[in-house]
Amino acid sequence: MQPSALAYVPFVSVDDMMKLVNGIGVADMIAGIADEIEADYRRWPEFDKTPRVPSHSEEGVIELMPTSDGETYGFKYVNGHPANMARGYQTVTAFGLLARVDTGYPILLSEMTILTALRTAAMSVVAARHLAPKGSKTLAIIGNGAQCEFQALGFQRCLGIETVRLYDIDARATAKAAANLAASGLNVIKCTTAEEVVQGAEIITTCTADKQYATILTDNMVGAGVHLNAIGGDCPGKTELHKDILLRSDIFVEYPPQTRIEGEIQQLDEDHPVTELWQVITGQATGRTDARQITLFDSVGFATEDFSALRYVHQRLEDMGHYAQLDMIADPDDPRDLFGMVMRAAPVEGAA
Amino acid sequence: MQPSALAYVPFVSVDDMMKLVNGIGVADMIAGIADEIEADYRRWPEFDKTPRVPSHSEEGVIELMPTSDGETYGFKYVNGHPANMARGYQTVTAFGLLARVDTGYPILLSEMTILTALRTAAMSVVAARHLAPKGSKTLAIIGNGAQCEFQALGFQRCLGIETVRLYDIDARATAKAAANLAASGLNVIKCTTAEEVVQGAEIITTCTADKQYATILTDNMVGAGVHLNAIGGDCPGKTELHKDILLRSDIFVEYPPQTRIEGEIQQLDEDHPVTELWQVITGQATGRTDARQITLFDSVGFATEDFSALRYVHQRLEDMGHYAQLDMIADPDDPRDLFGMVMRAAPVEGAA
Repeated sequence: MQPSALAYVPFVSVDDMMKLVNGIGVADMIAGIADEIEADYRRWPEFDKTPRVPSHSEEGVIELMPTSDGETYGFKYVNGHPANMARGYQTVTAFGLLARVDTGYPILLSEMTILTALRTAAMSVVAARHLAPKGSKTLAIIGNGAQCEFQALGFQRCLGIETVRLYDIDARATAKAAANLAASGLNVIKCTTAEEVVQGAEIITTCTADKQYATILTDNMVGAGVHLNAIGGDCPGKTELHKDILLRSDIFVEYPPQTRIEGEIQQLDEDHPVTELWQVITGQATGRTDARQITLFDSVGFATEDFSALRYVHQRLEDMGHYAQLDMIADPDDPRDLFGMVMRAAPVEGAA
Repeated sequence: MQPSALAYVPFVSVDDMMKLVNGIGVADMIAGIADEIEADYRRWPEFDKTPRVPSHSEEGVIELMPTSDGETYGFKYVNGHPANMARGYQTVTAFGLLARVDTGYPILLSEMTILTALRTAAMSVVAARHLAPKGSKTLAIIGNGAQCEFQALGFQRCLGIETVRLYDIDARATAKAAANLAASGLNVIKCTTAEEVVQGAEIITTCTADKQYATILTDNMVGAGVHLNAIGGDCPGKTELHKDILLRSDIFVEYPPQTRIEGEIQQLDEDHPVTELWQVITGQATGRTDARQITLFDSVGFATEDFSALRYVHQRLEDMGHYAQLDMIADPDDPRDLFGMVMRAAPVEGAA
């Protein structure tokens, strides 16, 4: 136990995170995070599940998302500001922290804007493993913004998807995503309508960004047997699916108290039956039971998933080496002598 | 609006904070923070006052303390682990963040272990300005740990205290504090009992650290006209004053919903009358009204005070220059092309 080392907290900057992602590979990193998420979902009852702590304003929301498994504590800071994009800012930015529960000392500070995109793809993959039709080969992605490519590569790597069909109301977003996926080995098909993009897709991911009640998919567009992965509806007032689709679907959620406020199911009655995904993963509930069933993963993002992603990053710190040491914790030789520590740091002429 | 500059968040490390404190001077910095706190207390209703978000464990607690004034959002991360000291760790460590409400982008990340000691002294000073007997010259400090010297210098600078009487159950702590204050110009008197230390003191500060119901002061030790500044009782199960003292005092608090759980008044009935300090500062309630009155500031530390302290640090960033730029916010040229930004950071051979 070396007190001087206690002052430092490993910090993964945006630059470090990009090096980490490129060093591991996007798809492999999504797969690794998916395994962490699934492992943590298997021990779901061990987690301290606090609802998000939001601070709302006219322009958006800033949220803290804490959780703990009794050994490690984690939280994510995340903002959501729909008007940011027009001003040249990111709609969503995030950073996160892990700490030891036994001492309260932080052990990791990390950017999470990039990491959240990877964990969202990883979460989608975990749900689809349990809910999508076996042998699915075609994924449709509606909304070709910041999440799109991560979803495509995650499903390719972890579910064996071969074809990705893309659609966005802005054709430039579709062109951007298609170009980014050109070297992926995926068969990429650019579509110009929502009706076209869903043709032949066993899995449909919706990841649009509008903060309003939108209807990205209408009822007649969703055929029997499809798995819907709805990740864009993630705050009050923001949904993507027509209510009639929800009524025809078996709905799976992360954490009902949060999803009923933030997810697609905010459109339904408070007691509309939903299944908690962790119970499917642990075998306490059934997932997909027949080929004509429509399954809907109504995903809003939960604190444990960020925790899993941060733990994955923490595990890869030493072998990948992309981090800096931040001098963040005051560590006097004598814990009662904080004042003396500050004074001894002064230039020789003295202080006070 | 330069997108590339948006990626950076100013970071004040422990080393930077020590340079800042020594550059400004401890007493002047406490005075500056006290002015910020008082200014923010004057506009108290403007603040979004969220209760702390705690994560409890057997060993201690990790808390997030968020607040917002509608323009700026802030939170503090703070742990409290009483067993840490025996293991060579700090009992309490902290860091904090400020962000713009309109964009959600962080504008300051700072160590707060040292800063919290300064803001606690600054808060004590603000309360004493309104509650202590006019012309107070003698301060008694019971508990000579990490807070002690900051309290002494804050009261010297802001209230004109000339004599500080020190007592701790551990005489080494008293010796440490006396040595640290030797060059301060204060008349420092080391005492060996609690009965002795309170002799002639117009202001008594209690800042002991035990997490248990303790009785640092008993009823017969507190004479008429004294101002009590109780800062050590700050969590459930941790108090410092005998209940009879509370019953003889006029009690002033920061934020009643928090103080009734964490402060000395957890010993009293839920409806025991207390006065909110912000109302005294704004003139909506009376503070000290006569010379024989015992006033008690039952201080537990509130999120707005950390906010005020962080804002003070933020204001002094540029003229003092003690900070680093952290690459914490992913900032793609095209906000929809997060994936492309990550890929373009890869070595030339490509990725995905």
